[in-house]
Amino acid sequence: MTDWSGERLKRMIDAAQGLRPVELCIRGCRLVNVFSGEIETVNLGIDDGFFVGWGDYEAERALDAEGMYACAGFIDGHIHIESTMLSPAQFTAAVLPWGTTAVVADPHEMANVYGVEGIRYLLDATEGVPLDFYFNLPSCVPATPLETSGARLTATDLAGLKSHPRVLGLAEMMNFPGVLMGIPEIMDKILLFRDGVVDGHAPGLGGLGLNGYLSAGIGSDHECTALEEAREKLAKGMTIMIREGSQSKDLQALLPAVGAQSWPRCMFVSDDRHPDDLLRSGHMNAIVNRAMSLGMEPLRALTLASWTAARYFGLPRQGAVAPGFQADFTLSRTLDPWVPSRVFKGGLEVARDGRLLVDPGSWSAPAVPPSPMRIGRLLAGDLRVELRDGPLRVIGVQEGTLLTRNLRMEPRAEGGVAVPDVDRDLLKLVVYNRYIEGKRPSVAFATGFGLKRGALATTVAHDSHNLICLGTSDAAILRVAEAVRDCGGGMAVGTEEGDLEVLPLPIGGLMSDGLLRDVVERFESLQARSRALGCSLAHPFMALSFLALPVIPELKLTDLGLVDVASFSFVPLFASK
Amino acid sequence: MTDWSGERLKRMIDAAQGLRPVELCIRGCRLVNVFSGEIETVNLGIDDGFFVGWGDYEAERALDAEGMYACAGFIDGHIHIESTMLSPAQFTAAVLPWGTTAVVADPHEMANVYGVEGIRYLLDATEGVPLDFYFNLPSCVPATPLETSGARLTATDLAGLKSHPRVLGLAEMMNFPGVLMGIPEIMDKILLFRDGVVDGHAPGLGGLGLNGYLSAGIGSDHECTALEEAREKLAKGMTIMIREGSQSKDLQALLPAVGAQSWPRCMFVSDDRHPDDLLRSGHMNAIVNRAMSLGMEPLRALTLASWTAARYFGLPRQGAVAPGFQADFTLSRTLDPWVPSRVFKGGLEVARDGRLLVDPGSWSAPAVPPSPMRIGRLLAGDLRVELRDGPLRVIGVQEGTLLTRNLRMEPRAEGGVAVPDVDRDLLKLVVYNRYIEGKRPSVAFATGFGLKRGALATTVAHDSHNLICLGTSDAAILRVAEAVRDCGGGMAVGTEEGDLEVLPLPIGGLMSDGLLRDVVERFESLQARSRALGCSLAHPFMALSFLALPVIPELKLTDLGLVDVASFSFVPLFASK
Repeated sequence: MTDWSGERLKRMIDAAQGLRPVELCIRGCRLVNVFSGEIETVNLGIDDGFFVGWGDYEAERALDAEGMYACAGFIDGHIHIESTMLSPAQFTAAVLPWGTTAVVADPHEMANVYGVEGIRYLLDATEGVPLDFYFNLPSCVPATPLETSGARLTATDLAGLKSHPRVLGLAEMMNFPGVLMGIPEIMDKILLFRDGVVDGHAPGLGGLGLNGYLSAGIGSDHECTALEEAREKLAKGMTIMIREGSQSKDLQALLPAVGAQSWPRCMFVSDDRHPDDLLRSGHMNAIVNRAMSLGMEPLRALTLASWTAARYFGLPRQGAVAPGFQADFTLSRTLDPWVPSRVFKGGLEVARDGRLLVDPGSWSAPAVPPSPMRIGRLLAGDLRVELRDGPLRVIGVQEGTLLTRNLRMEPRAEGGVAVPDVDRDLLKLVVYNRYIEGKRPSVAFATGFGLKRGALATTVAHDSHNLICLGTSDAAILRVAEAVRDCGGGMAVGTEEGDLEVLPLPIGGLMSDGLLRDVVERFESLQARSRALGCSLAHPFMALSFLALPVIPELKLTDLGLVDVASFSFVPLFASK
Repeated sequence: MTDWSGERLKRMIDAAQGLRPVELCIRGCRLVNVFSGEIETVNLGIDDGFFVGWGDYEAERALDAEGMYACAGFIDGHIHIESTMLSPAQFTAAVLPWGTTAVVADPHEMANVYGVEGIRYLLDATEGVPLDFYFNLPSCVPATPLETSGARLTATDLAGLKSHPRVLGLAEMMNFPGVLMGIPEIMDKILLFRDGVVDGHAPGLGGLGLNGYLSAGIGSDHECTALEEAREKLAKGMTIMIREGSQSKDLQALLPAVGAQSWPRCMFVSDDRHPDDLLRSGHMNAIVNRAMSLGMEPLRALTLASWTAARYFGLPRQGAVAPGFQADFTLSRTLDPWVPSRVFKGGLEVARDGRLLVDPGSWSAPAVPPSPMRIGRLLAGDLRVELRDGPLRVIGVQEGTLLTRNLRMEPRAEGGVAVPDVDRDLLKLVVYNRYIEGKRPSVAFATGFGLKRGALATTVAHDSHNLICLGTSDAAILRVAEAVRDCGGGMAVGTEEGDLEVLPLPIGGLMSDGLLRDVVERFESLQARSRALGCSLAHPFMALSFLALPVIPELKLTDLGLVDVASFSFVPLFASK
């Protein structure tokens, strides 16, 4: 509140007492009161961006709520906004109409690409937008030592960002084995934030291992998938972020963990939200409505999308409709489902019936740092795989899961080299290091895509976001790789000649600067084209984007080589017999 | 956690995982889990002052809990430790055996006497004691402009103390009319702490007035006495401190306000605790047990004495038994009542069956700043009341309430001066300014004490703590005043000659440096002696100590004169007819 003067505060106190008309009064709304647990019809006074309370207020402007329900704006306690492929401004434009007024973002992807510069860009780009962007600082950049990312974030780097007023703490400490081993750099990062927010990420961890993780001072987890897991974590003091994103959907399993004693330490988060879901189903509203459809009391569901998150993150003036709280709220004609009809941020109406009422063009738009793309000439020779003894280790992609299988297939030999074999769905996979000039790509084979012609490429490639390509021929691979390289990152699908479609993602090779509907349209066109080329996966680009992430079993390809995840080590492409 | 090294953290994480024996294991205790709402029998591992969790731990030292219940140490979220008349060390020694392991103190009284120096003394004197002393900074020193205190605390003074790690925020903002008027100095104080803790004090405030008070950013209230008042305050977002102290007892009235949605914003506090109550009934344990006897679920009652307080004050490692939390806890053989049999602070047993196991003599004992006592020669002439026209305005003291009546009585005249009249219980009341040399005392009359001989004096005289005396003769008044003056403050009762008993309170004239039982013994002896001299009040010194507080109706005497509380102004001693 350092920007507040006593005079400004006095003006608001005056308004709250009815000594002068409030700026805005929402008359006759049914207030969903997360504090009392009741719903009562009130006249809500708003002044200078804050609720001053309810009562018989004279107002400069009155708005008849027509009996609509009023609830605080939604807060997403954990989201990687990069998953939406939208710039901060377009993300804001996309989620406001759905009733989200604050997010706690983990800029893990941008940090992997740009390091501190990427986080600073996001902080700058979210300054003054009509959505509160808070940030937790990525704890694990790079995610593993088995890949090359654009940056390595040290505790010292994080310390330099800690004092920013919108930096809340440390984001998902996913290196839980590292925590349990007490790795000094991890200890330093935790100690830096231990008095504040330290978010966890410990799928399946329980018992003494969980005790160790919690003794480090970690406060939350969004990786619970099983009820008993959530119950143990809650009982040991964690705040549980119940995740219902585009990728992982844990709500149904975890709802019974929300109990009379534990609910203040539960909240809803999305973790990731793909653009198509965002366009069609929305954001936190979708989670709230799903929770209600699964039998959760509306008031409880709305509380877990607002106040409990604000409370956990120490945001004392957010997450509720009450005197002294930010006037961030939505009006809905029905309690269940909650359909934000009118959305207010800081007392200003920013969206109505799904339409944005403010102009993103007027928001701060700092220059985007050039996307790292230190990939020189693309040479066919770099993709050549000399035949060796033994079968190929092949990444077996499966529909509906990010887990791959570690398969063995005989190579198709052609003139002493191993080449793709479309008939057996044996396709070539290539990862270009885009951060260090002059590196040769790593090459392997994958099966499961079903592509018959052409190739796909993307720089959305967790977690280091190098350039990953998959194709039926070297020529096709080189063509899509070149297209993506030349636009500073993005996604492409095409064949050796003719057919080529690109979705440029100029912000780090991760995010577009376009509108949500344009991103979705282009993205879906890329998917459709992939299918037209024979691809049998529902989400080929998503599948591809996880093939370079060496923490999800069983076999992955990073820019440094083929990784057997079970042994967390590199393995040769040809398995000895 | 700035004093933590990564190595220390790693050692604890190791212990939590069972990689090395924990220092202490409490075997077979029934853990009252405020997180799960359940009670389960566990083996509790403790290392380096923290719980590392429960499980099958090897331990350097094991303790068989014999099925006792384990719960976090109690936290008193609002107490004036001056009310106990004990030094911080003796206060600690007194409350530890009752299971209190943390307090949030408001050093309002010490600040009125010493200003910043008094707060710094308390911070120093509480460093390293086996009880966590947190402080909220007094918001209203002096309490009113109608009296002379030892200091005036400005926002700048508070800013200088804000960064202390045990300073949490701003204490009870009792000048609620000042808040509602938007007085600049008050706005400054609130803005200084608005992002953290700003405790309120707004008895009876509701409706638009409450909206104004809350719009200032005030977070809590401990002055609710009526259920509907508490419900409105809770519904508007306040945290309610349910007070059950020696003076005010609000628990029974407010218990029904603790609901399924509101309980996380409710806690128990004592506000004040007199030494005799502390010796005989204890502290937070007494509130918890009373709550249970009134029908509150034991787990809920224990939660409101621990976790909800820690949560409100942003103390993430306190208030619960869970991995990563401070090992502050008590064991009780019964759940209801909770009788702390063994008390642990930071993993060390500090009290057993009411006996302290640690030595207060070994704790830090900074030099006590000299108690202000700028009262020179005590002159009979200063007490002389020249007879004027009209009846006397007389302070009517009543048993069982701090409210006084504004009475009229004819003076007893003797040689042109008004003198006490024991037959009509018309006694002389004198207030000496002890902060500014050479000031004449103010003099008035009171009825209701029933004293037949002698006089009482005390420097515990809210809120400025000048020297207040009441007596049947000038000579007796001078004698007790002199005794109190000469010992640097305290309490005394005596007659003109012979009979004289003193309880020295060398710490600001407010607190003893003696043991609780000695303070109680002497205090009760003073009370008995008062009764022996004819006093009919149950608590004569308490009654006397509030006669200089000009915010409680109807008539009071400060060092500056007689105050009509209704008009908040000075009035002459003789009322015109």
